Amino acid sequence: MTRERRPRRERRVADAIKQLPWQRLVNRFKPMEILSADELEAIHRASLRILEELGLEVWSEQALAIFRRAGASVDASNSRVRLDRGLIEAAIKTVPREFTLYPRNRERRVTFGGQPLVFGSVGGPPHCSDLDGGRRPGTQKDFRNLVRLIQSLNVVHIVSGSPVAPIDLNAETRHLDMYYDFLTLTDRVWHATAIGSERIEDAINLLSIARGVSREELTVEPSMLCVINTNSPLRLDGQMAEGLIAAAAAGQAVILTPFTLAGAMAPTSLAGALAQQNAEALAGIALTQLVRPGAPAMYGGFTSNVDMRSGAPAFGTPEYTKGAMATGQLTRRYGFPYRSSNVNASNAVDAQAAYESQMAIWGSLLGGVNLLHHGVGWLEGGLVASFEKMIVDAEMLQMIAKTLEPIVVDEDSLALSAIKEVGPGGHFFGAVHTLAHYETAFYQPLLSDWRNFESWREAGSKTATERANTLFKALLESYEKPPIDPAIEEAMGAYVRRRKEEIGQRAA
Amino acid sequence: MTRERRPRRERRVADAIKQLPWQRLVNRFKPMEILSADELEAIHRASLRILEELGLEVWSEQALAIFRRAGASVDASNSRVRLDRGLIEAAIKTVPREFTLYPRNRERRVTFGGQPLVFGSVGGPPHCSDLDGGRRPGTQKDFRNLVRLIQSLNVVHIVSGSPVAPIDLNAETRHLDMYYDFLTLTDRVWHATAIGSERIEDAINLLSIARGVSREELTVEPSMLCVINTNSPLRLDGQMAEGLIAAAAAGQAVILTPFTLAGAMAPTSLAGALAQQNAEALAGIALTQLVRPGAPAMYGGFTSNVDMRSGAPAFGTPEYTKGAMATGQLTRRYGFPYRSSNVNASNAVDAQAAYESQMAIWGSLLGGVNLLHHGVGWLEGGLVASFEKMIVDAEMLQMIAKTLEPIVVDEDSLALSAIKEVGPGGHFFGAVHTLAHYETAFYQPLLSDWRNFESWREAGSKTATERANTLFKALLESYEKPPIDPAIEEAMGAYVRRRKEEIGQRAA
Repeated sequence: MTRERRPRRERRVADAIKQLPWQRLVNRFKPMEILSADELEAIHRASLRILEELGLEVWSEQALAIFRRAGASVDASNSRVRLDRGLIEAAIKTVPREFTLYPRNRERRVTFGGQPLVFGSVGGPPHCSDLDGGRRPGTQKDFRNLVRLIQSLNVVHIVSGSPVAPIDLNAETRHLDMYYDFLTLTDRVWHATAIGSERIEDAINLLSIARGVSREELTVEPSMLCVINTNSPLRLDGQMAEGLIAAAAAGQAVILTPFTLAGAMAPTSLAGALAQQNAEALAGIALTQLVRPGAPAMYGGFTSNVDMRSGAPAFGTPEYTKGAMATGQLTRRYGFPYRSSNVNASNAVDAQAAYESQMAIWGSLLGGVNLLHHGVGWLEGGLVASFEKMIVDAEMLQMIAKTLEPIVVDEDSLALSAIKEVGPGGHFFGAVHTLAHYETAFYQPLLSDWRNFESWREAGSKTATERANTLFKALLESYEKPPIDPAIEEAMGAYVRRRKEEIGQRAA
Repeated sequence: MTRERRPRRERRVADAIKQLPWQRLVNRFKPMEILSADELEAIHRASLRILEELGLEVWSEQALAIFRRAGASVDASNSRVRLDRGLIEAAIKTVPREFTLYPRNRERRVTFGGQPLVFGSVGGPPHCSDLDGGRRPGTQKDFRNLVRLIQSLNVVHIVSGSPVAPIDLNAETRHLDMYYDFLTLTDRVWHATAIGSERIEDAINLLSIARGVSREELTVEPSMLCVINTNSPLRLDGQMAEGLIAAAAAGQAVILTPFTLAGAMAPTSLAGALAQQNAEALAGIALTQLVRPGAPAMYGGFTSNVDMRSGAPAFGTPEYTKGAMATGQLTRRYGFPYRSSNVNASNAVDAQAAYESQMAIWGSLLGGVNLLHHGVGWLEGGLVASFEKMIVDAEMLQMIAKTLEPIVVDEDSLALSAIKEVGPGGHFFGAVHTLAHYETAFYQPLLSDWRNFESWREAGSKTATERANTLFKALLESYEKPPIDPAIEEAMGAYVRRRKEEIGQRAA
């Protein structure tokens, strides 16, 4: 639908949407040291003991061979690798403290590590939902609309994986369609799928075409991230191991994220879950450096807990929040960039979804997070990408972005002249100082409705979630595809067609 | 309705409600220094200049006389008092860094100042609402149910004022009915109404009866708080001034809270609004000490902003959050206990209500707040006390309480034996360590629903707000009046009757 043909009402809403500009953010807040120095070291030492005494199960001959060459003790009979602290400490020395990723639009490059704060979108859900269509398995249509929405939201810096699985596409070649959409519907950094090495290679080849650079140049100025989840406790499966190796070998960024849900895949105590998380993260990050010293890597913290009555995963809990702060301390101890997430376990875009998300956001922010993964759209413990939650989250992240801006304290902002002009009992609406500043003085919300009750009721008594429904549709209506060289677009299309044929023939 | 007669379903819900126990809390988080030392001093100096050069309008002969005796420059022609920095600095020296208030149940005493963290209920709304009855002006029935609900929620330490105005009661004697209800339906510390001195005197007399102590003893071990709002900018009205004087004279706690909404009652800049807030707070707190050196006083931060397009007040905004952190720094500069609030501007108990509240809570917490006012139930910028929001807020405050508990790091919690018992690829459900800890390891929610989507849908697809509706009714059904000596209850009743007669005769 072109701009001219879309309905008048949605055009009006879209024109009225006020977003913050796309901007790089800095986390000015001092991290919260929730663990004492001794406690931090106790968790560190426990994780080293886990790796030395118990070790990690690695279902990949290739990975086991790399560990063996580095001097690790490998028991091929049960795929177990034991890593002593000397090996770990030597390997992780080369992890860069920060690194920059370059999408096809260099203006949208982002740096991970140090004070920069990067917001990513939801990645991974099998389902999506909105108020109109309800909860449903993802399709390419939903996938594309979510990708367009991510591109439309200025506060989202990167596409953090598949916003929903397009299950109507062939699973063997789906990644090619997804990459093509990331590269044409957005101009941002995106995540590749690290299931085996082939999907990583396809990402690298498409990025080389998109950016018009050689594979070597792509190594110097890397473009992509991928998430490697350990199968906690203490197992790295073959596909993940080989995805990790392929990405690290090509100098692309690996986010090593143990899936340590305390009470199920990790001990029923936060300290134990953190020790196990740390062991798995250290082993995986060490592997990236054994593959390629200096390869960009990130420590992903995802420790949460299950409901011990039902086994259901919980997110945005007090334990998650404290875990996010403690994980930040661990990552700073090693000098690793830190990824955490905006998570919740609610089944609806309601107050619970918002307060659990906020707990997760503040825990991450105070943990000194560098990449907030699942920043917009994550619902239902990650089983659902919600179109309305995209907007609720975008509002919350915009508010965080504004909160991180310094308070300006100078003669003009202290406003003594305005206070004298107005005097006791007056009001500031018409003051000279107000007229000079009113347009930009305060945050203007994307979603929040501050009208009085009567006006709000006259407008239909819409909850934030219902308003988010209107907003996401208006944003989709006003979506504009970012400019791209048609020759590059055609070359990428040709690559995708060729690879689909190859994969199809292999399957036949 | 007795315990036996209430409906089976609500009894079942009430029996299943798991709350944290009533407990005193400590804010272990290091406060966020959002202002540099220079910026903090610039705001401090600006506020002193406001008081020296412009001064405060005080509509009370009694207060003006007190200021005059202290050496202030008073212009009786326009009720203006100018206070120089020497006077302010000398006066505020005697403010206690912390103080304890004693309700009739000494077990429920609470300390304000330093690290203790006190949660108060909503105070002040003219309206209330629930999903069944909608939005409506408050009545005594609603007032009493809200008071019962506050008593039923363990996470709420004190009753922070009138949870809703009981407008069906005579405005002249309403405070007597309210105090009687606070003293009989709860056993917690509560707020008196500081509109003139008479309502303060009635509170003091009833507290003396309730606690069985003399007025002098009540001064040594004070019982009550009251909020004094300046009519910003820079005006203290007569009723407020006289309420302040009466409370301070009796050694009861005054919370001086300027109502500095930037863009309307304060400059259109956060620094200017903070400078004005600080001027008004310093002047009011100085007055408490001029009345009675050492009287307990607290600095209330309420700076927020209006929507500059409509003039509507906004709460839980980035400006509010930053203001709460900066105000904490100001209060620590002077050594004053600090009150902030859990606020939002939403018209419904929706995602907006939750995320604005969370922004306010985290800003306050990181500001080093001592009393979180309006902790449960505040909606619609304070115009409404919501029964459902009481439960949503109680859940959020319980989560904060658990987040403030230290992470236990010791041999048992590091759980190496459990990790070895389970081994790579196993699960922790049946581990010895899990069986020893599963009942108490993690926070169990009051309101959050972590069931999977199918179970949640089968149970009626209820949002958090709809579940809160069920919960508040179940809590009211299971409410039990705290024990009280019948002779004391009768003596308080007699006092109320006598005072109503006096006030009635005076009016006639």
